[in-house]
Amino acid sequence: MKSILTLTVGEFELVHDMLSLLIAAMGASALFFLLSRKQVVERFQPLLLLAGIIASIGCYHAFRLFNSWNEAFELAGNSYAASGHFFHEVYRYGDWALTMPLLLVELVLVLPILKGQTAALLKRLIGTALISILFSYLGASNIGEHGVLLLWSCWLLALLPFLYIARIFVGELSHEAAQQGAPVDRLFVGARNLFLLSWFFYPLANLIALCSHGFGEVGLVTFLIGAGIADLISKCGVSFYIYRIALLRSSES
Amino acid sequence: MKSILTLTVGEFELVHDMLSLLIAAMGASALFFLLSRKQVVERFQPLLLLAGIIASIGCYHAFRLFNSWNEAFELAGNSYAASGHFFHEVYRYGDWALTMPLLLVELVLVLPILKGQTAALLKRLIGTALISILFSYLGASNIGEHGVLLLWSCWLLALLPFLYIARIFVGELSHEAAQQGAPVDRLFVGARNLFLLSWFFYPLANLIALCSHGFGEVGLVTFLIGAGIADLISKCGVSFYIYRIALLRSSES
Repeated sequence: MKSILTLTVGEFELVHDMLSLLIAAMGASALFFLLSRKQVVERFQPLLLLAGIIASIGCYHAFRLFNSWNEAFELAGNSYAASGHFFHEVYRYGDWALTMPLLLVELVLVLPILKGQTAALLKRLIGTALISILFSYLGASNIGEHGVLLLWSCWLLALLPFLYIARIFVGELSHEAAQQGAPVDRLFVGARNLFLLSWFFYPLANLIALCSHGFGEVGLVTFLIGAGIADLISKCGVSFYIYRIALLRSSES
Repeated sequence: MKSILTLTVGEFELVHDMLSLLIAAMGASALFFLLSRKQVVERFQPLLLLAGIIASIGCYHAFRLFNSWNEAFELAGNSYAASGHFFHEVYRYGDWALTMPLLLVELVLVLPILKGQTAALLKRLIGTALISILFSYLGASNIGEHGVLLLWSCWLLALLPFLYIARIFVGELSHEAAQQGAPVDRLFVGARNLFLLSWFFYPLANLIALCSHGFGEVGLVTFLIGAGIADLISKCGVSFYIYRIALLRSSES
Protein backbone atom coordinates (compact mmCIF):
# COMPACT_ATOMS: atom_id res chain seq x y z
CA MET A 1 0.00 0.00 0.00
CA LYS A 2 1.49 3.33 -1.03
CA SER A 3 0.85 5.71 1.79
CA ILE A 4 -0.58 9.11 1.01
CA LEU A 5 -1.39 9.71 4.64
CA THR A 6 0.23 12.14 7.02
CA LEU A 7 0.43 10.86 10.57
CA THR A 8 0.86 12.70 13.83
CA VAL A 9 4.01 11.75 15.71
CA GLY A 10 1.83 9.89 18.23
CA GLU A 11 0.07 7.84 15.53
CA PHE A 12 3.36 6.90 13.86
CA GLU A 13 4.97 5.94 17.14
CA LEU A 14 2.04 3.86 18.35
CA VAL A 15 2.35 1.51 15.36
CA HIS A 16 6.17 1.62 15.52
CA ASP A 17 6.03 0.57 19.19
CA MET A 18 3.44 -2.13 18.58
CA LEU A 19 5.54 -3.69 15.82
CA SER A 20 8.65 -3.59 17.99
CA LEU A 21 6.66 -5.22 20.81
CA LEU A 22 5.59 -7.94 18.37
CA ILE A 23 9.21 -8.73 17.44
CA ALA A 24 10.15 -9.09 21.11
CA ALA A 25 7.04 -11.05 22.10
CA MET A 26 7.28 -13.49 19.19
CA GLY A 27 11.01 -14.00 19.71
CA ALA A 28 10.44 -14.61 23.42
CA SER A 29 7.58 -17.05 22.70
CA ALA A 30 9.74 -18.91 20.20
CA LEU A 31 12.45 -19.35 22.83
CA PHE A 32 9.92 -20.42 25.45
CA PHE A 33 8.22 -23.09 23.34
CA LEU A 34 11.43 -24.43 21.78
CA LEU A 35 13.18 -24.75 25.14
CA SER A 36 10.16 -26.14 27.02
CA ARG A 37 9.87 -29.26 24.93
CA LYS A 38 11.40 -31.52 27.56
CA GLN A 39 8.61 -30.59 30.02
CA VAL A 40 6.11 -32.73 28.13
CA VAL A 41 6.17 -36.41 27.21
CA GLU A 42 7.81 -37.39 23.95
CA ARG A 43 4.72 -37.61 21.80
CA PHE A 44 3.71 -33.99 22.60
CA GLN A 45 7.17 -32.53 21.96
CA PRO A 46 6.50 -31.99 18.22
CA LEU A 47 3.56 -29.74 19.24
CA LEU A 48 5.87 -27.41 21.15
CA LEU A 49 8.35 -27.51 18.28
CA LEU A 50 5.51 -26.36 15.98
CA ALA A 51 4.57 -23.60 18.47
CA GLY A 52 8.20 -22.42 18.47
CA ILE A 53 8.36 -22.44 14.67
CA ILE A 54 5.07 -20.49 14.39
CA ALA A 55 6.40 -17.81 16.76
CA SER A 56 9.71 -17.69 14.83
CA ILE A 57 7.89 -17.12 11.53
CA GLY A 58 5.83 -14.40 13.26
CA CYS A 59 9.01 -12.79 14.56
CA TYR A 60 10.55 -12.69 11.05
CA HIS A 61 7.47 -11.02 9.58
CA ALA A 62 7.21 -8.55 12.47
CA PHE A 63 10.79 -7.48 11.60
CA ARG A 64 9.81 -6.98 7.95
CA LEU A 65 6.67 -4.98 8.89
CA PHE A 66 8.64 -2.85 11.37
CA ASN A 67 11.31 -1.97 8.78
CA SER A 68 8.71 -1.27 6.11
CA TRP A 69 6.70 1.01 8.42
CA ASN A 70 9.78 3.06 9.24
CA GLU A 71 10.70 3.40 5.56
CA ALA A 72 7.21 4.45 4.51
CA PHE A 73 7.13 7.67 6.55
CA GLU A 74 9.57 10.46 7.28
CA LEU A 75 9.49 13.13 9.90
CA ALA A 76 8.56 16.49 8.35
CA GLY A 77 8.17 19.22 10.93
CA ASN A 78 5.73 18.01 13.55
CA SER A 79 4.27 15.07 11.65
CA TYR A 80 5.20 11.99 9.66
CA ALA A 81 4.62 12.38 5.92
CA ALA A 82 4.66 9.67 3.27
CA SER A 83 8.27 9.05 2.16
CA GLY A 84 7.36 7.61 -1.25
CA HIS A 85 8.14 4.03 -0.20
CA PHE A 86 5.36 1.51 0.06
CA PHE A 87 4.21 0.31 3.44
CA HIS A 88 4.35 -3.36 2.54
CA GLU A 89 1.52 -4.59 4.71
CA VAL A 90 1.00 -7.79 2.69
CA TYR A 91 3.90 -9.56 4.46
CA ARG A 92 1.08 -10.62 6.74
CA TYR A 93 -0.33 -12.95 4.07
CA GLY A 94 2.97 -14.75 3.56
CA ASP A 95 3.00 -15.12 7.33
CA TRP A 96 -0.51 -16.58 7.38
CA ALA A 97 0.15 -18.94 4.47
CA LEU A 98 2.75 -20.61 6.71
CA THR A 99 1.44 -20.12 10.25
CA MET A 100 -2.27 -20.85 9.78
CA PRO A 101 -1.69 -24.41 8.46
CA LEU A 102 0.80 -25.02 11.30
CA LEU A 103 -1.72 -23.71 13.88
CA LEU A 104 -4.33 -26.04 12.43
CA VAL A 105 -1.92 -28.96 12.79
CA GLU A 106 -1.27 -27.95 16.43
CA LEU A 107 -4.98 -27.68 17.25
CA VAL A 108 -5.87 -31.03 15.67
CA LEU A 109 -2.89 -33.04 16.96
CA VAL A 110 -3.37 -31.94 20.57
CA LEU A 111 -6.62 -33.91 20.70
CA PRO A 112 -6.30 -37.69 21.08
CA ILE A 113 -8.72 -38.32 18.27
CA LEU A 114 -9.38 -39.57 14.86
CA LYS A 115 -6.29 -41.76 14.58
CA GLY A 116 -7.04 -42.80 11.01
CA GLN A 117 -8.81 -39.59 10.06
CA THR A 118 -6.25 -37.01 11.19
CA ALA A 119 -4.49 -36.73 7.82
CA ALA A 120 -7.74 -36.38 5.86
CA LEU A 121 -9.12 -33.78 8.30
CA LEU A 122 -5.90 -31.76 8.16
CA LYS A 123 -5.83 -31.82 4.37
CA ARG A 124 -9.40 -30.49 4.33
CA LEU A 125 -8.67 -27.75 6.90
CA ILE A 126 -5.35 -26.66 5.39
CA GLY A 127 -6.66 -26.64 1.81
CA THR A 128 -9.60 -24.50 2.88
CA ALA A 129 -7.34 -22.15 4.87
CA LEU A 130 -5.00 -21.64 1.90
CA ILE A 131 -7.95 -20.71 -0.35
CA SER A 132 -9.06 -18.11 2.19
CA ILE A 133 -5.54 -16.68 2.50
CA LEU A 134 -5.08 -16.57 -1.29
CA PHE A 135 -8.20 -14.43 -1.74
CA SER A 136 -7.24 -12.21 1.22
CA TYR A 137 -3.87 -11.64 -0.49
CA LEU A 138 -5.45 -10.90 -3.88
CA GLY A 139 -7.76 -8.36 -2.22
CA ALA A 140 -4.95 -6.63 -0.36
CA SER A 141 -2.18 -6.75 -2.98
CA ASN A 142 -1.58 -4.40 -5.87
CA ILE A 143 -1.99 -7.05 -8.57
CA GLY A 144 -4.28 -5.62 -11.22
CA GLU A 145 -6.74 -2.77 -10.92
CA HIS A 146 -8.99 -3.23 -7.96
CA GLY A 147 -12.56 -2.29 -8.65
CA VAL A 148 -15.02 -2.28 -5.76
CA LEU A 149 -16.69 -5.42 -7.11
CA LEU A 150 -13.36 -7.32 -7.10
CA LEU A 151 -12.59 -6.19 -3.54
CA TRP A 152 -16.00 -7.38 -2.31
CA SER A 153 -15.58 -10.68 -4.19
CA CYS A 154 -12.18 -11.27 -2.59
CA TRP A 155 -13.62 -10.39 0.81
CA LEU A 156 -16.47 -12.88 0.41
CA LEU A 157 -14.25 -15.62 -1.08
CA ALA A 158 -11.88 -15.24 1.88
CA LEU A 159 -14.73 -15.25 4.42
CA LEU A 160 -16.59 -18.37 3.24
CA PRO A 161 -13.66 -20.83 3.69
CA PHE A 162 -13.06 -19.34 7.14
CA LEU A 163 -16.71 -19.95 8.11
CA TYR A 164 -16.32 -23.57 6.97
CA ILE A 165 -13.23 -23.98 9.19
CA ALA A 166 -15.05 -22.33 12.10
CA ARG A 167 -17.93 -24.78 11.67
CA ILE A 168 -15.56 -27.78 11.86
CA PHE A 169 -13.96 -26.37 15.01
CA VAL A 170 -17.23 -25.54 16.75
CA GLY A 171 -18.76 -28.84 15.56
CA GLU A 172 -16.78 -32.07 15.31
CA LEU A 173 -13.53 -30.97 16.96
CA SER A 174 -15.29 -29.48 20.00
CA HIS A 175 -17.35 -32.65 20.25
CA GLU A 176 -14.11 -34.69 20.41
CA ALA A 177 -12.65 -32.31 22.99
CA ALA A 178 -15.78 -32.60 25.16
CA GLN A 179 -15.15 -36.35 25.47
CA GLN A 180 -11.76 -35.63 27.10
CA GLY A 181 -13.32 -34.36 30.31
CA ALA A 182 -13.38 -30.99 31.96
CA PRO A 183 -9.82 -29.54 32.05
CA VAL A 184 -8.74 -30.56 28.53
CA ASP A 185 -12.13 -29.58 27.11
CA ARG A 186 -12.04 -26.16 28.78
CA LEU A 187 -8.50 -25.45 27.53
CA PHE A 188 -9.33 -26.63 24.00
CA VAL A 189 -12.37 -24.35 23.86
CA GLY A 190 -10.11 -21.51 25.00
CA ALA A 191 -7.53 -22.23 22.28
CA ARG A 192 -10.26 -22.62 19.66
CA ASN A 193 -11.94 -19.34 20.60
CA LEU A 194 -8.68 -17.38 20.51
CA PHE A 195 -7.81 -18.93 17.12
CA LEU A 196 -11.19 -18.09 15.57
CA LEU A 197 -11.32 -14.64 17.18
CA SER A 198 -7.86 -13.65 15.89
CA TRP A 199 -8.76 -14.79 12.38
CA PHE A 200 -12.21 -13.13 12.47
CA PHE A 201 -10.58 -9.76 13.18
CA TYR A 202 -9.54 -9.50 9.51
CA PRO A 203 -12.88 -9.98 7.71
CA LEU A 204 -14.43 -7.62 10.27
CA ALA A 205 -11.76 -4.92 9.80
CA ASN A 206 -11.89 -5.29 6.01
CA LEU A 207 -15.68 -5.00 6.08
CA ILE A 208 -15.37 -1.69 7.91
CA ALA A 209 -12.70 -0.53 5.42
CA LEU A 210 -14.84 -1.53 2.42
CA CYS A 211 -17.91 0.25 3.80
CA SER A 212 -15.98 3.42 4.62
CA HIS A 213 -13.97 3.41 1.32
CA GLY A 214 -10.58 2.71 2.87
CA PHE A 215 -8.97 3.68 6.13
CA GLY A 216 -8.02 7.22 7.04
CA GLU A 217 -5.13 7.92 9.42
CA VAL A 218 -7.01 6.90 12.56
CA GLY A 219 -8.48 3.88 10.79
CA LEU A 220 -5.07 2.65 9.59
CA VAL A 221 -3.49 3.02 13.02
CA THR A 222 -6.46 1.31 14.72
CA PHE A 223 -6.31 -1.52 12.17
CA LEU A 224 -2.59 -2.10 12.65
CA ILE A 225 -2.86 -2.10 16.45
CA GLY A 226 -5.78 -4.54 16.19
CA ALA A 227 -3.85 -6.76 13.74
CA GLY A 228 -0.90 -6.75 16.13
CA ILE A 229 -3.13 -7.87 19.02
CA ALA A 230 -4.66 -10.57 16.77
CA ASP A 231 -1.10 -11.76 15.98
CA LEU A 232 -0.20 -11.96 19.66
CA ILE A 233 -3.40 -13.87 20.37
CA SER A 234 -2.95 -16.41 17.59
CA LYS A 235 0.81 -17.01 17.80
CA CYS A 236 1.48 -16.68 21.53
CA GLY A 237 -1.99 -17.16 23.10
CA VAL A 238 -3.26 -20.19 21.16
CA SER A 239 0.09 -21.98 21.49
CA PHE A 240 0.15 -21.26 25.23
CA TYR A 241 -3.18 -23.10 25.60
CA ILE A 242 -1.76 -25.97 23.52
CA TYR A 243 1.25 -26.03 25.83
CA ARG A 244 -1.03 -26.28 28.88
CA ILE A 245 -3.04 -29.11 27.30
CA ALA A 246 0.20 -30.94 26.50
CA LEU A 247 1.40 -30.47 30.11
CA LEU A 248 -1.92 -31.73 31.47
CA ARG A 249 -2.07 -34.76 29.20
CA SER A 250 1.61 -35.52 29.95
CA SER A 251 0.90 -35.68 33.69
CA GLU A 252 -2.08 -37.98 33.04
CA SER A 253 -0.19 -40.45 30.89
CA MET B 1 21.11 -10.25 -15.35
CA LYS B 2 21.02 -6.49 -15.79
CA SER B 3 17.41 -5.52 -15.87
CA ILE B 4 16.10 -3.32 -18.63
CA LEU B 5 12.52 -4.15 -17.73
CA THR B 6 9.90 -1.93 -16.17
CA LEU B 7 7.53 -3.77 -13.88
CA THR B 8 4.09 -2.86 -12.64
CA VAL B 9 3.80 -2.51 -8.87
CA GLY B 10 1.88 -5.78 -8.77
CA GLU B 11 4.57 -7.68 -10.73
CA PHE B 12 7.36 -6.34 -8.55
CA GLU B 13 5.49 -7.14 -5.35
CA LEU B 14 4.52 -10.64 -6.38
CA VAL B 15 8.19 -11.65 -6.71
CA HIS B 16 9.12 -9.64 -3.59
CA ASP B 17 6.45 -11.49 -1.60
CA MET B 18 7.43 -14.89 -3.02
CA LEU B 19 11.08 -14.36 -2.08
CA SER B 20 10.12 -13.24 1.43
CA LEU B 21 7.89 -16.31 1.76
CA LEU B 22 10.85 -18.48 0.68
CA ILE B 23 13.06 -17.02 3.44
CA ALA B 24 10.39 -17.75 6.06
CA ALA B 25 9.49 -21.21 4.74
CA MET B 26 13.12 -22.35 4.42
CA GLY B 27 14.01 -20.98 7.86
CA ALA B 28 10.98 -22.70 9.40
CA SER B 29 11.84 -25.98 7.63
CA ALA B 30 15.45 -25.78 8.83
CA LEU B 31 14.24 -25.38 12.44
CA PHE B 32 11.77 -28.23 12.00
CA PHE B 33 14.22 -30.77 10.58
CA LEU B 34 17.11 -29.83 12.88
CA LEU B 35 14.96 -30.06 16.02
CA SER B 36 13.04 -33.19 14.95
CA ARG B 37 16.08 -35.44 14.83
CA LYS B 38 15.31 -37.16 18.12
CA GLN B 39 11.98 -38.39 16.71
CA VAL B 40 13.77 -40.99 14.58
CA VAL B 41 16.20 -43.76 15.52
CA GLU B 42 19.87 -42.92 15.65
CA ARG B 43 20.88 -44.16 12.21
CA PHE B 44 18.30 -41.88 10.50
CA GLN B 45 19.22 -38.75 12.47
CA PRO B 46 21.93 -37.73 9.94
CA LEU B 47 19.19 -37.61 7.26
CA LEU B 48 17.24 -34.99 9.20
CA LEU B 49 20.47 -33.09 9.86
CA LEU B 50 21.03 -33.03 6.09
CA ALA B 51 17.44 -31.86 5.52
CA GLY B 52 17.98 -29.03 8.01
CA ILE B 53 21.24 -28.01 6.35
CA ILE B 54 19.67 -28.04 2.87
CA ALA B 55 16.85 -25.76 4.10
CA SER B 56 19.41 -23.47 5.81
CA ILE B 57 21.38 -23.10 2.57
CA GLY B 58 18.11 -22.37 0.77
CA CYS B 59 17.22 -19.73 3.38
CA TYR B 60 20.60 -18.00 2.90
CA HIS B 61 20.19 -17.84 -0.88
CA ALA B 62 16.59 -16.66 -0.60
CA PHE B 63 17.90 -13.72 1.48
CA ARG B 64 20.44 -12.90 -1.25
CA LEU B 65 17.82 -13.10 -4.02
CA PHE B 66 15.37 -10.97 -1.98
CA ASN B 67 17.95 -8.23 -1.40
CA SER B 68 19.13 -8.31 -5.02
CA TRP B 69 15.56 -8.08 -6.34
CA ASN B 70 14.87 -5.00 -4.20
CA GLU B 71 18.11 -3.33 -5.32
CA ALA B 72 17.49 -3.99 -9.01
CA PHE B 73 14.32 -1.91 -9.23
CA GLU B 74 13.18 1.42 -7.89
CA LEU B 75 9.76 2.96 -7.61
CA ALA B 76 9.28 5.60 -10.31
CA GLY B 77 5.77 7.00 -10.33
CA ASN B 78 3.38 4.08 -10.56
CA SER B 79 5.84 1.40 -11.71
CA TYR B 80 9.17 -0.16 -10.84
CA ALA B 81 11.96 0.80 -13.25
CA ALA B 82 15.46 -0.69 -13.50
CA SER B 83 17.72 0.95 -10.92
CA GLY B 84 20.97 0.18 -12.74
CA HIS B 85 21.92 -2.63 -10.34
CA PHE B 86 22.05 -6.21 -11.57
CA PHE B 87 19.42 -8.65 -10.46
CA HIS B 88 21.86 -11.38 -9.48
CA GLU B 89 19.73 -14.36 -10.29
CA VAL B 90 22.65 -16.78 -10.53
CA TYR B 91 22.81 -17.18 -6.72
CA ARG B 92 20.53 -20.07 -7.51
CA TYR B 93 23.38 -22.05 -9.09
CA GLY B 94 25.59 -21.67 -6.02
CA ASP B 95 22.60 -22.92 -4.07
CA TRP B 96 22.19 -25.94 -6.35
CA ALA B 97 25.88 -26.81 -6.33
CA LEU B 98 25.51 -27.40 -2.58
CA THR B 99 21.92 -28.57 -2.14
CA MET B 100 21.53 -30.94 -5.09
CA PRO B 101 24.39 -33.26 -3.96
CA LEU B 102 23.01 -33.20 -0.40
CA LEU B 103 19.50 -34.03 -1.67
CA LEU B 104 20.97 -36.95 -3.63
CA VAL B 105 22.67 -38.21 -0.45
CA GLU B 106 19.34 -37.92 1.42
CA LEU B 107 17.43 -39.80 -1.26
CA VAL B 108 19.95 -42.63 -1.55
CA LEU B 109 20.65 -43.10 2.19
CA VAL B 110 16.96 -43.28 3.13
CA LEU B 111 16.76 -46.62 1.29
CA PRO B 112 18.24 -49.67 3.05
CA ILE B 113 20.15 -50.72 -0.01
CA LEU B 114 23.37 -51.30 -1.71
CA LYS B 115 25.53 -51.55 1.40
CA GLY B 116 28.73 -51.87 -0.57
CA GLN B 117 27.58 -49.84 -3.55
CA THR B 118 26.28 -46.69 -1.86
CA ALA B 119 29.53 -44.73 -2.13
CA ALA B 120 30.06 -45.61 -5.79
CA LEU B 121 26.45 -44.76 -6.68
CA LEU B 122 26.65 -41.42 -4.87
CA LYS B 123 29.92 -40.50 -6.60
CA ARG B 124 28.29 -41.21 -9.95
CA LEU B 125 25.12 -39.22 -9.11
CA ILE B 126 26.89 -36.24 -7.54
CA GLY B 127 29.53 -36.02 -10.29
CA THR B 128 26.81 -36.03 -12.93
CA ALA B 129 24.76 -33.43 -11.02
CA LEU B 130 27.74 -31.08 -10.73
CA ILE B 131 28.35 -31.28 -14.49
CA SER B 132 24.71 -30.36 -15.10
CA ILE B 133 24.84 -27.44 -12.65
CA LEU B 134 28.13 -26.17 -14.12
CA PHE B 135 26.65 -25.92 -17.61
CA SER B 136 23.44 -24.36 -16.25
CA TYR B 137 25.57 -21.73 -14.56
CA LEU B 138 27.65 -21.07 -17.69
CA GLY B 139 24.46 -20.60 -19.70
CA ALA B 140 22.93 -18.20 -17.18
CA SER B 141 26.00 -16.21 -16.12
CA ASN B 142 27.59 -13.23 -17.84
CA ILE B 143 30.91 -14.98 -18.46
CA GLY B 144 31.91 -14.35 -22.08
CA GLU B 145 29.73 -13.30 -24.97
CA HIS B 146 26.72 -15.52 -25.25
CA GLY B 147 25.90 -16.47 -28.78
CA VAL B 148 22.74 -18.43 -29.39
CA LEU B 149 24.79 -21.53 -30.23
CA LEU B 150 26.59 -21.39 -26.86
CA LEU B 151 23.28 -20.94 -24.99
CA TRP B 152 21.77 -23.96 -26.72
CA SER B 153 24.94 -26.00 -26.06
CA CYS B 154 24.84 -25.15 -22.35
CA TRP B 155 21.16 -26.00 -22.23
CA LEU B 156 21.74 -29.42 -23.80
CA LEU B 157 24.87 -30.15 -21.72
CA ALA B 158 22.90 -29.36 -18.57
CA LEU B 159 19.91 -31.44 -19.65
CA LEU B 160 21.74 -34.69 -20.57
CA PRO B 161 23.30 -35.30 -17.12
CA PHE B 162 19.89 -34.61 -15.55
CA LEU B 163 18.26 -37.23 -17.80
CA TYR B 164 20.95 -39.73 -16.74
CA ILE B 165 20.17 -39.02 -13.05
CA ALA B 166 16.43 -39.30 -13.72
CA ARG B 167 17.02 -42.70 -15.35
CA ILE B 168 18.89 -44.00 -12.29
CA PHE B 169 16.06 -42.79 -10.02
CA VAL B 170 13.27 -44.22 -12.14
CA GLY B 171 15.24 -47.40 -12.73
CA GLU B 172 17.49 -49.00 -10.11
CA LEU B 173 16.57 -46.84 -7.10
CA SER B 174 12.82 -47.27 -7.62
CA HIS B 175 13.41 -50.98 -8.00
CA GLU B 176 15.12 -51.04 -4.59
CA ALA B 177 12.31 -48.97 -3.06
CA ALA B 178 9.68 -51.34 -4.44
CA GLN B 179 11.24 -54.18 -2.44
CA GLN B 180 10.56 -52.25 0.79
CA GLY B 181 6.82 -52.79 0.60
CA ALA B 182 3.91 -50.45 0.15
CA PRO B 183 4.26 -47.46 2.52
CA VAL B 184 8.02 -46.88 2.09
CA ASP B 185 7.78 -47.47 -1.67
CA ARG B 186 4.88 -45.01 -2.02
CA LEU B 187 6.69 -42.31 -0.02
CA PHE B 188 9.94 -42.85 -1.95
CA VAL B 189 8.15 -42.51 -5.28
CA GLY B 190 6.59 -39.27 -3.95
CA ALA B 191 10.00 -37.88 -2.90
CA ARG B 192 11.59 -38.96 -6.19
CA ASN B 193 8.84 -37.37 -8.29
CA LEU B 194 9.02 -34.07 -6.41
CA PHE B 195 12.82 -34.05 -6.77
CA LEU B 196 12.76 -34.72 -10.53
CA LEU B 197 9.83 -32.34 -11.09
CA SER B 198 11.52 -29.44 -9.28
CA TRP B 199 14.73 -29.98 -11.27
CA PHE B 200 12.92 -30.41 -14.59
CA PHE B 201 11.29 -26.97 -14.16
CA TYR B 202 14.58 -25.32 -15.16
CA PRO B 203 15.34 -26.99 -18.53
CA LEU B 204 11.67 -26.49 -19.41
CA ALA B 205 11.67 -22.77 -18.46
CA ASN B 206 15.00 -22.22 -20.23
CA LEU B 207 13.71 -23.95 -23.35
CA ILE B 208 10.78 -21.52 -23.43
CA ALA B 209 13.16 -18.58 -22.89
CA LEU B 210 15.51 -19.76 -25.65
CA CYS B 211 12.65 -20.23 -28.11
CA SER B 212 11.13 -16.83 -27.33
CA HIS B 213 14.50 -14.97 -27.23
CA GLY B 214 14.43 -14.16 -23.49
CA PHE B 215 11.73 -13.36 -21.05
CA GLY B 216 9.63 -10.22 -21.09
CA GLU B 217 8.18 -8.75 -17.88
CA VAL B 218 5.43 -11.33 -17.51
CA GLY B 219 7.83 -14.14 -18.46
CA LEU B 220 10.39 -13.08 -15.86
CA VAL B 221 7.78 -12.82 -13.09
CA THR B 222 6.26 -16.18 -14.07
CA PHE B 223 9.71 -17.79 -14.15
CA LEU B 224 10.65 -16.45 -10.71
CA ILE B 225 7.36 -17.56 -9.13
CA GLY B 226 7.80 -21.00 -10.72
CA ALA B 227 11.43 -21.20 -9.54
CA GLY B 228 10.27 -20.28 -6.03
CA ILE B 229 7.68 -23.05 -6.06
CA ALA B 230 10.33 -25.50 -7.38
CA ASP B 231 12.59 -24.45 -4.49
CA LEU B 232 9.83 -25.06 -1.94
CA ILE B 233 9.13 -28.46 -3.49
CA SER B 234 12.75 -29.61 -3.53
CA LYS B 235 13.97 -28.22 -0.19
CA CYS B 236 10.85 -28.53 1.98
CA GLY B 237 8.70 -31.08 0.12
CA VAL B 238 11.32 -33.75 -0.73
CA SER B 239 12.82 -33.58 2.76
CA PHE B 240 9.36 -33.88 4.34
CA TYR B 241 8.87 -37.17 2.48
CA ILE B 242 12.34 -38.30 3.65
CA TYR B 243 11.30 -37.37 7.22
CA ARG B 244 8.15 -39.48 6.90
CA ILE B 245 10.11 -42.48 5.54
CA ALA B 246 12.58 -42.11 8.43
CA LEU B 247 9.68 -41.98 10.95
CA LEU B 248 8.09 -45.05 9.38
CA ARG B 249 11.28 -47.08 9.27
CA SER B 250 12.11 -45.99 12.85
CA SER B 251 8.79 -47.35 14.12
CA GLU B 252 9.42 -50.62 12.25
CA SER B 253 12.90 -51.17 13.61
